[in-house]
Amino acid sequence: MSDTTKARTLDVGLGMLLRHGYNGLGVQAVLEEVGIPKGSFYHHFDSKEDFVIQVVDRYMIDVHRGLDVSLNDKTLPPLERVRKFFELSRDKYREDGYLGCMLGGLGQELSGVSPVFQKKIEECLGAIADRVTVCMKEAKSKGDIPKSADARHLANLIVDCWEGAALRSRLRQDPAPLNSMLDFYFNAVVPKIKKTVRKKAS
Amino acid sequence: MSDTTKARTLDVGLGMLLRHGYNGLGVQAVLEEVGIPKGSFYHHFDSKEDFVIQVVDRYMIDVHRGLDVSLNDKTLPPLERVRKFFELSRDKYREDGYLGCMLGGLGQELSGVSPVFQKKIEECLGAIADRVTVCMKEAKSKGDIPKSADARHLANLIVDCWEGAALRSRLRQDPAPLNSMLDFYFNAVVPKIKKTVRKKAS
Repeated sequence: MSDTTKARTLDVGLGMLLRHGYNGLGVQAVLEEVGIPKGSFYHHFDSKEDFVIQVVDRYMIDVHRGLDVSLNDKTLPPLERVRKFFELSRDKYREDGYLGCMLGGLGQELSGVSPVFQKKIEECLGAIADRVTVCMKEAKSKGDIPKSADARHLANLIVDCWEGAALRSRLRQDPAPLNSMLDFYFNAVVPKIKKTVRKKAS
Repeated sequence: MSDTTKARTLDVGLGMLLRHGYNGLGVQAVLEEVGIPKGSFYHHFDSKEDFVIQVVDRYMIDVHRGLDVSLNDKTLPPLERVRKFFELSRDKYREDGYLGCMLGGLGQELSGVSPVFQKKIEECLGAIADRVTVCMKEAKSKGDIPKSADARHLANLIVDCWEGAALRSRLRQDPAPLNSMLDFYFNAVVPKIKKTVRKKAS
């Protein structure tokens, strides 16, 4: 399997996993979709679990790319950068057909039975919160949020609330829960936040 | 199968479903745990899907009982009643071993593949939001939250954010995300809410 084929296998897996979940994902269906034999698949992936872990890593590359695009955009105030990241995620969900967040999906499906995935998904959500924390610290140093605010705490809060809104958005096939959550969060974090930021929510 | 046996089958299913999810739930394992033959099971349940739908209905009986205990407690101000419901849910999660909320689990696992469960879980979350809405309207009429507040919107928000916090609590085996979310929400909804309410979060 060439690197290109491996990448395509992971991409196909990502799409299937998002819709069907772990248990609903058939390795055979992936093989057929990509057009590779079983031996080729198992040359690169030890098992279905290993494959899905690598799909999650592939998913996280996109997530970090989204974080780069938004959080590194120094033309925006720190909080608007954070909001931009979640708005990009919302737009991605729409493109996918409102299947929500893969981390939330796998986390819910597997954390009761797989310590491997429980740890993996927590690490992924923690990694997003880490990056948001940096931005929140900058918001604090600039006086955009109170000095007393706990940057990591606020970062974890938006990640957690987002995951719930992503589930509801998935159930309703509607971005409204995502937008409502962002409006609520940013209004709460910074009651005096510039109105331009609020307006971007709608 | 007597009504008692049916109730016990649903209870066993509930426990297994919370941990293993839909795909990880084996009907055979349920039969063995309850000690009934397959024929007896299929006399009461048309299929595994029908069984799980009935388990969800069984779960919702507990949820509505929790809503009754908390939201009907007129000795508390309306917002404290809402908080009490979520605190009762948090305590239930601890008893279960932090397996989170069954609605969030099934919603994430199945909404991509099963319109039946997508609709069912949305109805359940909507039913919780309906009941919280009534309390929020009362909070508004008593002046505990601003007259401009949208009761249903606020009810949906707490349900959605809670589901995300429940996932994170499950991943971390820790109630902290639940408490953080409740603190954040109630502080945001009513900045002047009595301090006693806030303190109950910790």
